[in-house]
Amino acid sequence: MPQDTSHENLESLVLAVVNSYSEQPSFLPNKEEIIDILEMVRKLLFPGYFKNESTELTDLYFYVGSMMMELGDKLQKQVCRALLHDTTLKGTCGADAESLSAQIAYAFLTKIPKLREILLTDVDATLDGDPAARNKHEIIFAYPGIFAISVYRIAHELHVLGVPLIPRIMTEHAHSITGIDIHPGAAIGHHFFIDHGTGIVVGETTEIGNYVKIYQGVTLGALSTRGGQSLQGKKRHPTLEDEVTVYSSTSILGGETVIGRGAVIGANAFITRSVPPGTRVSIKTPDMDFKTL
Amino acid sequence: MPQDTSHENLESLVLAVVNSYSEQPSFLPNKEEIIDILEMVRKLLFPGYFKNESTELTDLYFYVGSMMMELGDKLQKQVCRALLHDTTLKGTCGADAESLSAQIAYAFLTKIPKLREILLTDVDATLDGDPAARNKHEIIFAYPGIFAISVYRIAHELHVLGVPLIPRIMTEHAHSITGIDIHPGAAIGHHFFIDHGTGIVVGETTEIGNYVKIYQGVTLGALSTRGGQSLQGKKRHPTLEDEVTVYSSTSILGGETVIGRGAVIGANAFITRSVPPGTRVSIKTPDMDFKTL
Amino acid sequence: MPQDTSHENLESLVLAVVNSYSEQPSFLPNKEEIIDILEMVRKLLFPGYFKNESTELTDLYFYVGSMMMELGDKLQKQVCRALLHDTTLKGTCGADAESLSAQIAYAFLTKIPKLREILLTDVDATLDGDPAARNKHEIIFAYPGIFAISVYRIAHELHVLGVPLIPRIMTEHAHSITGIDIHPGAAIGHHFFIDHGTGIVVGETTEIGNYVKIYQGVTLGALSTRGGQSLQGKKRHPTLEDEVTVYSSTSILGGETVIGRGAVIGANAFITRSVPPGTRVSIKTPDMDFKTL
Amino acid sequence: MPQDTSHENLESLVLAVVNSYSEQPSFLPNKEEIIDILEMVRKLLFPGYFKNESTELTDLYFYVGSMMMELGDKLQKQVCRALLHDTTLKGTCGADAESLSAQIAYAFLTKIPKLREILLTDVDATLDGDPAARNKHEIIFAYPGIFAISVYRIAHELHVLGVPLIPRIMTEHAHSITGIDIHPGAAIGHHFFIDHGTGIVVGETTEIGNYVKIYQGVTLGALSTRGGQSLQGKKRHPTLEDEVTVYSSTSILGGETVIGRGAVIGANAFITRSVPPGTRVSIKTPDMDFKTL
Amino acid sequence: MPQDTSHENLESLVLAVVNSYSEQPSFLPNKEEIIDILEMVRKLLFPGYFKNESTELTDLYFYVGSMMMELGDKLQKQVCRALLHDTTLKGTCGADAESLSAQIAYAFLTKIPKLREILLTDVDATLDGDPAARNKHEIIFAYPGIFAISVYRIAHELHVLGVPLIPRIMTEHAHSITGIDIHPGAAIGHHFFIDHGTGIVVGETTEIGNYVKIYQGVTLGALSTRGGQSLQGKKRHPTLEDEVTVYSSTSILGGETVIGRGAVIGANAFITRSVPPGTRVSIKTPDMDFKTL
Amino acid sequence: MPQDTSHENLESLVLAVVNSYSEQPSFLPNKEEIIDILEMVRKLLFPGYFKNESTELTDLYFYVGSMMMELGDKLQKQVCRALLHDTTLKGTCGADAESLSAQIAYAFLTKIPKLREILLTDVDATLDGDPAARNKHEIIFAYPGIFAISVYRIAHELHVLGVPLIPRIMTEHAHSITGIDIHPGAAIGHHFFIDHGTGIVVGETTEIGNYVKIYQGVTLGALSTRGGQSLQGKKRHPTLEDEVTVYSSTSILGGETVIGRGAVIGANAFITRSVPPGTRVSIKTPDMDFKTL
Repeated sequence: MPQDTSHENLESLVLAVVNSYSEQPSFLPNKEEIIDILEMVRKLLFPGYFKNESTELTDLYFYVGSMMMELGDKLQKQVCRALLHDTTLKGTCGADAESLSAQIAYAFLTKIPKLREILLTDVDATLDGDPAARNKHEIIFAYPGIFAISVYRIAHELHVLGVPLIPRIMTEHAHSITGIDIHPGAAIGHHFFIDHGTGIVVGETTEIGNYVKIYQGVTLGALSTRGGQSLQGKKRHPTLEDEVTVYSSTSILGGETVIGRGAVIGANAFITRSVPPGTRVSIKTPDMDFKTL
Repeated sequence: MPQDTSHENLESLVLAVVNSYSEQPSFLPNKEEIIDILEMVRKLLFPGYFKNESTELTDLYFYVGSMMMELGDKLQKQVCRALLHDTTLKGTCGADAESLSAQIAYAFLTKIPKLREILLTDVDATLDGDPAARNKHEIIFAYPGIFAISVYRIAHELHVLGVPLIPRIMTEHAHSITGIDIHPGAAIGHHFFIDHGTGIVVGETTEIGNYVKIYQGVTLGALSTRGGQSLQGKKRHPTLEDEVTVYSSTSILGGETVIGRGAVIGANAFITRSVPPGTRVSIKTPDMDFKTL
Repeated sequence: MPQDTSHENLESLVLAVVNSYSEQPSFLPNKEEIIDILEMVRKLLFPGYFKNESTELTDLYFYVGSMMMELGDKLQKQVCRALLHDTTLKGTCGADAESLSAQIAYAFLTKIPKLREILLTDVDATLDGDPAARNKHEIIFAYPGIFAISVYRIAHELHVLGVPLIPRIMTEHAHSITGIDIHPGAAIGHHFFIDHGTGIVVGETTEIGNYVKIYQGVTLGALSTRGGQSLQGKKRHPTLEDEVTVYSSTSILGGETVIGRGAVIGANAFITRSVPPGTRVSIKTPDMDFKTL
Repeated sequence: MPQDTSHENLESLVLAVVNSYSEQPSFLPNKEEIIDILEMVRKLLFPGYFKNESTELTDLYFYVGSMMMELGDKLQKQVCRALLHDTTLKGTCGADAESLSAQIAYAFLTKIPKLREILLTDVDATLDGDPAARNKHEIIFAYPGIFAISVYRIAHELHVLGVPLIPRIMTEHAHSITGIDIHPGAAIGHHFFIDHGTGIVVGETTEIGNYVKIYQGVTLGALSTRGGQSLQGKKRHPTLEDEVTVYSSTSILGGETVIGRGAVIGANAFITRSVPPGTRVSIKTPDMDFKTL
Repeated sequence: MPQDTSHENLESLVLAVVNSYSEQPSFLPNKEEIIDILEMVRKLLFPGYFKNESTELTDLYFYVGSMMMELGDKLQKQVCRALLHDTTLKGTCGADAESLSAQIAYAFLTKIPKLREILLTDVDATLDGDPAARNKHEIIFAYPGIFAISVYRIAHELHVLGVPLIPRIMTEHAHSITGIDIHPGAAIGHHFFIDHGTGIVVGETTEIGNYVKIYQGVTLGALSTRGGQSLQGKKRHPTLEDEVTVYSSTSILGGETVIGRGAVIGANAFITRSVPPGTRVSIKTPDMDFKTL
Repeated sequence: MPQDTSHENLESLVLAVVNSYSEQPSFLPNKEEIIDILEMVRKLLFPGYFKNESTELTDLYFYVGSMMMELGDKLQKQVCRALLHDTTLKGTCGADAESLSAQIAYAFLTKIPKLREILLTDVDATLDGDPAARNKHEIIFAYPGIFAISVYRIAHELHVLGVPLIPRIMTEHAHSITGIDIHPGAAIGHHFFIDHGTGIVVGETTEIGNYVKIYQGVTLGALSTRGGQSLQGKKRHPTLEDEVTVYSSTSILGGETVIGRGAVIGANAFITRSVPPGTRVSIKTPDMDFKTL
């Protein structure tokens, strides 16, 4: 600080910052807690891969029971905060919000076996699709695609249960880790396979069938968002039927665009209209200029 | 270790590594401290969203004052290290560097209200532009675009104040979190909107006006960097005038390329020349091959 | 929780989750330990940039010796777990696995001076290639390309030594930080330069010569992975000879595709056949539609 | 675990433990938080000695303001829990308890300047009394007597404000650190000096005047506690008037025992009756047996 | 460091230290783990007082089950290390030691309900004995006597099960916290009451009946330990029958000294011979010298 | 907070606290760092007992070298702060203080082998003296007497080297852990044995020969400290010649009191005059009153 920085200067600086604030919401979900919740669900989904220790003494029954109790507790608190926030209620988590958030947390816990079942189909699809994968352990442990899909599937269940804000915080966490941005509102079938992943965008109203494969840089997006908030709730993103494959850096845009069952879309394509089932679409290799240097 | 790994082997291994070193700079900024500084500035910019607790007792005035004092202190230390490093001075932060770094830290603090003002225009632009956004809270809390822009705006102020190394460490931190790489030297107007974000590159000498929107995979780059270090300081990246929109996966290259006011550049375009104001540029949809499988 | 959630409900919920598990592998490498190992190797490779403190008292010889001992110890343990896991042996790290993993850890330590030597060529290439780079310190400290290359080079040495699982966990860690996905099985020469980086994919059987430069969004991939696991071990990814440059968003695919010495591949290209040495390939700029709004 | 330890055995063991529990209070103050509160008050009382950093930038005004806000907040929460616990109310901190605890926390904050004033007299007394003390810094920093007295003075204020449980947790914390056990209910004047300290006991209804000195192993206790709970609230411990000195390992017992102004009680004495002012009491040196070995 | 401190000086310093070492045992129990184990047992013994959170969702059954599994696991590992250490076996925890330590850990778990039962009698005795105690919560939460007794009871069970080293580490931990030093080998009945506590010593071969009360500074010790190691295993410390009370600063010494049922020993006594049942022993108040100052 | 607690009230409260401060010293040693230094020295003194891990890979030579470098560095910084503080110099650790503190830190490192040698004699004395001790491991690991002696010996070396403040902070740390208060200025010979320990006080000018044993509650103190600061530097505490034993709760007072070689002082004695060599002193057992209850 320069010698002449008097106490008065500092005070007026602080006042300038404070005066620039308008009112703030008083209760918000806690991001660290939400990431903790994600980790707990993932430990329940793949217990062998995330447990620190494994010994004869550890009885899985108590381990799972204890973690589910703690998970339900944490989830209830964050859901309560998110509900209050969304309805711009003021004050603490009162009786109504507490009861509703407890029902939601319990309902989520009952979905865990189903989540595990569908995620194992995604692992199978990845093993089938990637010749570089050595075994399922490697896929669960190290593949960003499986990480992003598992976070999406968890977030999507909460989205379906009507939880605001938290699902999006979850998928943005996966986005920052993997570069794969799947909106929690999207609907995705079983045996979903993402290769490499960086740069994938799956929009809010996308519908994806079973046995679908997508590669890095694929966008399933809206034709235009010029309407902004007025488009909220409308189907703006495409539909991919069962067994569709979309190769890298391809964009498929528009809420009325349907890629029919079994279609294969080549790399670098730009699709804004529907494609019939069983069709292979590829861009003609662009003309290239060869010049000796 | 194999049984025959004698003490001598280990010592010679250590010597081999030590001998491979040449001299090292003795003072460098600390990356963890710089990320801490970023978080503190962001708390000052959006106090409601990052505060852990919210109670009647907490008086914003003291909270802000205390944090600004701590921030100024931390920033001064890192700036001092960066200044010394840049000028390859040896030794500790002496009198001259301390005085200069304190002036810079103080000058940065005075910019916070202005930073807050411009960032709120970016939040407004995001709410307008994304139908999936529920409200401003969600945007500030969870949108990678806003994260990257806020880090850029902080880093840019330090860049303007002549701080070496630290601005780039800040924007690379945001790059690793969001996949959005904005060089701190770029100049960007208000109401800037980035959708999804992964894969965006904004080069050092880019100029961007107000109300500009860009989508994932957009590169605002140099035509060539073949000249390497000899190009340092020259304008190598494009200019986007007010109200320009650039859709996904488009590259706009070259220091003399100017995209005129209100122009809209479609997805997947590759622009190396200027575009007049008020023009819509779209690539002709590439010819596609449809083949029934 | 709703009032009527009885103890029995919770127990049956827990049982439903437990019953959904099949058997789990009992020993797996620990991801946090592996990231620690990476950080230690990087400290040994660039000691000045990652050391917390620097004083007269710290004698580099003991610092390096102590860190190498600790590194060898940690690495041996994780390699042992990875070996056991891969061979689906049950039980603890027995005599054979311990001896083998200690040999591997020791062999890795002997590679550190060579790793340092080749990485410094990558730093040189980056300084030459990027006009925005101020000096080597900034590159080592803040450039994602150098981070990803250093992690790849470490992982590749372990891959060559026959270590399963760990190299992939390492490169996926770099992938999540940088968006650059280099398979540890790839072979890459010296003076390798990656600019910006997000969205780069370098496949398992890729071969890259010396003085090669690649830009963001480049894929060095397989033509098809339709054969899945049956393709394991086959060369599926391209070869880039010395001094090749590949600009952004270009895909080069196929195990028989060879890009000849000194060739330059322009942005957005899609290459599935070999390119002769000394050739510049660029896609014809796609036709564009200009329309006044 | 022995091989024959079946799942049933473990379950019955768990049930045996669970069945041994009776009901538990649902809300209790948090010990870690209380120790945190103690540390914060001590930082406010002696700001120079506990601050981590000291730089030109740190403005004491904001530092103190921010810490007092946080302290008031933390204290209010723990007081609320303690009030609920004491009255065996069930449920969360409701409106009445919250309002009362906020009043108490605020009242405590107003006592801080007075606490600081009286503690500085204790520091003065210690410097006067101990020839081994180099200066006030050493005393505040390293003397267990000053630690115990400062914790007692803080706890006593809360005791006077009617806070249950927390004052005792505070003084037991000081007891475990210093071996000095001062009940928060005791009344102690200014310029209080404790030398060495280990083994000192000052009972709940003790009254101590100004300028009093006590040495290690001194007990100011009850003659008998045979009546147990029936004695609660009665004066059971002695009164020491101004300027009394009590040397080591002396016990002074009984609620009606008054040590008059300026009296000096020698080491190893056992006092159960009043001592007039200005009297020196010493035990006759016990007869000793000298035997050549 | 002085300028002339050459590398050679440092190396010879290091060698001097290394050469001063003789061989070291390679496996020792871990003190932090043992303190963790203590905390876990105490949580199982008083679940309401140490649980961080208490909500409807937390089902005690799973909480206890999970903690017992983890406790058994941790205890088994430390017992294994202690067994190996004691028998000066070299190497890792082999098959025999593992099996034995698992049996011991399991046997300890079965003792938890009994431990809880006897500790609640100690809490009752404390409430009866101390008029300053407000309720059982305060005693369990804040009384050093109960802390020391609970640690002793846990350590004693392990001592009875033949575990070396660990019980002593546990009681020394309590000693450092409370100043109460109870050897894990002592045998102590139910309803044991310790007031204040600092300076209490209870020797290895002490036997204490039910309903015994002791005050601060009491030593139950050996007459002499001049024989050193040759006395190992002999009864060297006194026996206190049921309902004995020993007031502060009294020493009772010798393995043949028996304090009969219901006896009351006054403060400051020095007892080296047996005392018949139902006797009150008090030292004659030492002659005191009163002198007006 | 009560509803009517206005911003003004809080501000005036803060001002009241700030105004109660007088000036503060700007640089003080850091207590956590000093405890860290103690732990590092103890690891160097007993490397097997405090190392976390022990494997074939860890080479003691590098481990010790690295720790000594780090220790020297940390010690130099704290000594510099202590020197500045003592001389009430203002400002940072300038050239003179840095050079002096580096010399002191280096001198301390050279004392480590000697410290280790003398501490092993204390361990031997403890094994000889305590029939409850199983082996040296238990003593080093768990005995508070050895902890206090080792901290005293470290602090004494720094005291001899002229370091202010830090030695006292070290011995007060041991005091709080063990209840044993040995002033760093005391001079103590080899084969020193402390049993149990709580309540021991060894004053600043005490001199203790070789093979001395003392028990809990022993005070080696001053006859009077009435002179306060005027006594500073004078010999106020007793001298114990070789092979003296002092049993529990005995006080030996006065700077001219000399306990001759081989003397044995019984429990509860109160010695203010010299005792000839080879004498056994015991208090006559006080008369006791036996009364049947």
